Amino acid sequence: MKRNIKIVVEYDGTNYSGWQIQKNTPYTIQQVLEEALSELNKSRVDITGAGRTDAGVHAAGQTANFFLDVSIPVEKIPLAVNTCLPSDIVCIKAEEVPDDFHARYNASGKKYRYRILNSDFNSVFIRNYVYKVHKKLDIELMQNAAEILEGCHDFAAFMASGGAVDSTVRNIYSLNVYPARSDQIWIDVIGDGFLYNMVRIIAGTLIEIGIEKRSLKNVKKALMKRKRKYAGFTAPAKGLTLIEVFYD
Amino acid sequence: MKRNIKIVVEYDGTNYSGWQIQKNTPYTIQQVLEEALSELNKSRVDITGAGRTDAGVHAAGQTANFFLDVSIPVEKIPLAVNTCLPSDIVCIKAEEVPDDFHARYNASGKKYRYRILNSDFNSVFIRNYVYKVHKKLDIELMQNAAEILEGCHDFAAFMASGGAVDSTVRNIYSLNVYPARSDQIWIDVIGDGFLYNMVRIIAGTLIEIGIEKRSLKNVKKALMKRKRKYAGFTAPAKGLTLIEVFYD
Repeated sequence: MKRNIKIVVEYDGTNYSGWQIQKNTPYTIQQVLEEALSELNKSRVDITGAGRTDAGVHAAGQTANFFLDVSIPVEKIPLAVNTCLPSDIVCIKAEEVPDDFHARYNASGKKYRYRILNSDFNSVFIRNYVYKVHKKLDIELMQNAAEILEGCHDFAAFMASGGAVDSTVRNIYSLNVYPARSDQIWIDVIGDGFLYNMVRIIAGTLIEIGIEKRSLKNVKKALMKRKRKYAGFTAPAKGLTLIEVFYD
Repeated sequence: MKRNIKIVVEYDGTNYSGWQIQKNTPYTIQQVLEEALSELNKSRVDITGAGRTDAGVHAAGQTANFFLDVSIPVEKIPLAVNTCLPSDIVCIKAEEVPDDFHARYNASGKKYRYRILNSDFNSVFIRNYVYKVHKKLDIELMQNAAEILEGCHDFAAFMASGGAVDSTVRNIYSLNVYPARSDQIWIDVIGDGFLYNMVRIIAGTLIEIGIEKRSLKNVKKALMKRKRKYAGFTAPAKGLTLIEVFYD
């Protein structure tokens, strides 16, 4: 009997073309995971991710589901599938869920972290997981800008052109900017959903605020004008990590 | 006029054959650093490291010195040399020192950290900087063993065969085993000097104590018997980082 399995996955996105399977690109997280699970299942497995992460974006808690035929105990799935995975993708949890559970449709929210290294020097051990800004960032200004963005807004200005969606209104439950270990500044954002490149554009906008290239007024204007050109640059993928996917 | 320059360097040792220049191996830290500094100096620069790190061992504070001809201000050296270095080697500090300063001979001590990930799962973001032990480690037992090793002892049993030195007596000023973030156990050791592979053999011995494969009595025996076979295995290089080199 097929069981619906929900897994939580951690990955270093550095060497991948993102989550979603693409023709002619063997290096997507989804494809590598499907191959590993298919090996475990002894027949083809298709997985559904909670969301697509871009090329170079990492995850500490990406979530996916799939239907499994083999009768392996659910708690043994992570270790079993990890033996078929490369060292930059790790399954950290598995549980059986009702047949109608869908990792994307049932997700009620997500948490992302954007890591900035505010230093003259790169740090070799975290070099693939932070974006280095050498100009001193004014955290207080960034926090003020974050407050403006919190809440339910039309984030059309914070969506990469090319994204096609019915509505560009999203609810940001919290957006926190705070100093973290060794010269880092972290931006944590929790929301009900995110437009294409939205977190990276928010991070880029906050960075431009932090180096005083952009004013707080400007952030309000971006929300009002609803055009991409009024928001900041798209901060590089490598600073971004999908931390957690929430389900009610 | 030649100036004697002391630098502090951070590196990810994963892709290198260790610190020391070797024939037919272009990927040593020393060689890559010498090439970058020679480019800066517009003529050949030879550097002296405080100590050799093995293939795969990392450094957060390796120290070296060299003589420089060009008249660049000393505080600008790190940024200038970093533009010639790959992303896994970073110079974080430079200062002018007296002509007779020698990075190895003048070093009065060193601090190393050995990182153990005590978990069923690898962690993708630190996978190159920790050694994973899935059996639950008894930290208290490891701390008791560490106390035995602290102090001035003949560490002959804790030296890889092949190491040739006048004396195998070394002074360990402190050896601390403690829980660190996300399922990690860190071993910090400060001493006046270390024999070949000594820190990795100490780490391996403490790990064997922690999984109760080896008794405390056994550690005393290793010190007394002075033979390699009485100590534990050599823990993998990737868990080891040279944290700091001390000068009086």
